[in-house]
Amino acid sequence: MTASSSSSHVLIVGSMAFDDLHLPTGSFPSEVGGSATFAALSASLFAPARLVAVVGEDFPEATLALLRERGSDVQGVERAAGKTFRWAGRYADDLASRTTLDTQLNVFAEFQPRLPEAYRDGGVVLLGNIHPRLQLEVLSQVKAPLLVAADTMNFWIEGEREALLEVLARVDLLVINDEELRLLARERNLVRAAGLVRQLGPRSLVVKRGEHGALLFDDDGAFYAPAWPLEAEVDPTGAGDTFAGALLGWVARSGSVDARSLRQGLHVAATVASFCVEDVGTRRLSTLTRGHVTSRLEALARLVRVD
Amino acid sequence: MTASSSSSHVLIVGSMAFDDLHLPTGSFPSEVGGSATFAALSASLFAPARLVAVVGEDFPEATLALLRERGSDVQGVERAAGKTFRWAGRYADDLASRTTLDTQLNVFAEFQPRLPEAYRDGGVVLLGNIHPRLQLEVLSQVKAPLLVAADTMNFWIEGEREALLEVLARVDLLVINDEELRLLARERNLVRAAGLVRQLGPRSLVVKRGEHGALLFDDDGAFYAPAWPLEAEVDPTGAGDTFAGALLGWVARSGSVDARSLRQGLHVAATVASFCVEDVGTRRLSTLTRGHVTSRLEALARLVRVD
Repeated sequence: MTASSSSSHVLIVGSMAFDDLHLPTGSFPSEVGGSATFAALSASLFAPARLVAVVGEDFPEATLALLRERGSDVQGVERAAGKTFRWAGRYADDLASRTTLDTQLNVFAEFQPRLPEAYRDGGVVLLGNIHPRLQLEVLSQVKAPLLVAADTMNFWIEGEREALLEVLARVDLLVINDEELRLLARERNLVRAAGLVRQLGPRSLVVKRGEHGALLFDDDGAFYAPAWPLEAEVDPTGAGDTFAGALLGWVARSGSVDARSLRQGLHVAATVASFCVEDVGTRRLSTLTRGHVTSRLEALARLVRVD
Repeated sequence: MTASSSSSHVLIVGSMAFDDLHLPTGSFPSEVGGSATFAALSASLFAPARLVAVVGEDFPEATLALLRERGSDVQGVERAAGKTFRWAGRYADDLASRTTLDTQLNVFAEFQPRLPEAYRDGGVVLLGNIHPRLQLEVLSQVKAPLLVAADTMNFWIEGEREALLEVLARVDLLVINDEELRLLARERNLVRAAGLVRQLGPRSLVVKRGEHGALLFDDDGAFYAPAWPLEAEVDPTGAGDTFAGALLGWVARSGSVDARSLRQGLHVAATVASFCVEDVGTRRLSTLTRGHVTSRLEALARLVRVD
């Protein structure tokens, strides 16, 4: 992985949070989490991240320091008076489903994304999974982005469809999972659903399928990237945000949004996400290096090689 | 796909049946089905099949004629007095699950596989999904097979574990789906489960994952073959048998059981199975040609190509 001369950065807006995780392997209170946290930790493996989020007085400085060490800019992270957004959830024994036990928005309830002056120009933009109105707010503050990507979730697809459609009309790349795609397109078949959603705006659509890899649909057709078969999955929390962060980080690093960088990015993203689920919360991402990713990418290439 | 000079044949034992299929697209009574039928129709695309099964007086001669046209030998198909094995099932709207409405064993109840003299030497052997004791009976009648492969199902894994373990100790290749693997290994993680099952006998293990492709575990490590993303899935009945038939047909055609032929075979098998589910029962397989398979294999190669 060599950097392009014209490498860019990734502007990430999303949530930073504490997660109380109840996993088959045990309960883990107050794990650092949030869509922006996972995305920034993975994106910053490949390109500088510029973070826009809000945390409370109780959020650990160490997480912001780690992002700074990785060359990221966290001046857009507002530290507000009060507590950090907190989510509590319990996973099923097979980790395939989870139940939300509690959600405390805390300082996130009043979150109004404000981009520092230094954030407003160019770059790759990742609108993390937050209210579509806030995603639009961010877009209104960005000039000449290289690429605008968005994530979303069932909650907004069902409850804020109109605002979400406004967002879709303005994004180049939508990154969602297969169930979200089916819900958004109101079509069960993924190939047909992808065609329908691309008509809503995004020229490129990435469908995350967890252990089953990821699909890309764009003007060049369809592309499939497998996931690494894990011997032990510990915690799926944040894997989707990690995938999106790594994908956009890779695109920013390559400095151009062509079919090739997107396709390579899918392999990289599936691989970084496979590391994420190997430990609780952001723990694995915090120690992950580009060298680890390169090694697993090589193993992944061997996994699909016939000769 | 060019034939090797030392091409072999596939000996297939299994069920031939009528299926009463209740699909989201409608009800289709008395469709020709059965594990041996699906496997032989797909295997015979690549190598001669030698079929061992039992049918009743009501089974259509046309199906046997089609297999003969494809160069297969059906002298091992016994036509017994009475009715053919019949299965009735209803599929969920998403085709992901099905309920058995009725099972009439009929002539299959007394099935005792007897191999014609001409069947007893060499070849690739596919022990279709029947009672493990019957699978053992077939093995006792074969001399110097090139490869012995077996399929099975939850019913035998739960109810006839001991006999099944006897079979596993004597097969080179086990071809099952992911849920069957988990049940057999009593382990949820596929990679760990594969390791456990390979210790029971089969040096090679193929895990069928439907729309998610297939995994091969052997002495050379793991190999993954993706499935073709279908725009319309009509009927999953027999897709697993079709996969196994195509895989073994391909191996027989290449004439050697090496890592390469098995890996190529996985791509071929996933592709033939993707055709099978595009129409009801064996309809698509009955008209499928090697040319159709080659075209989709090329599309599949494009689907995973980065450049």
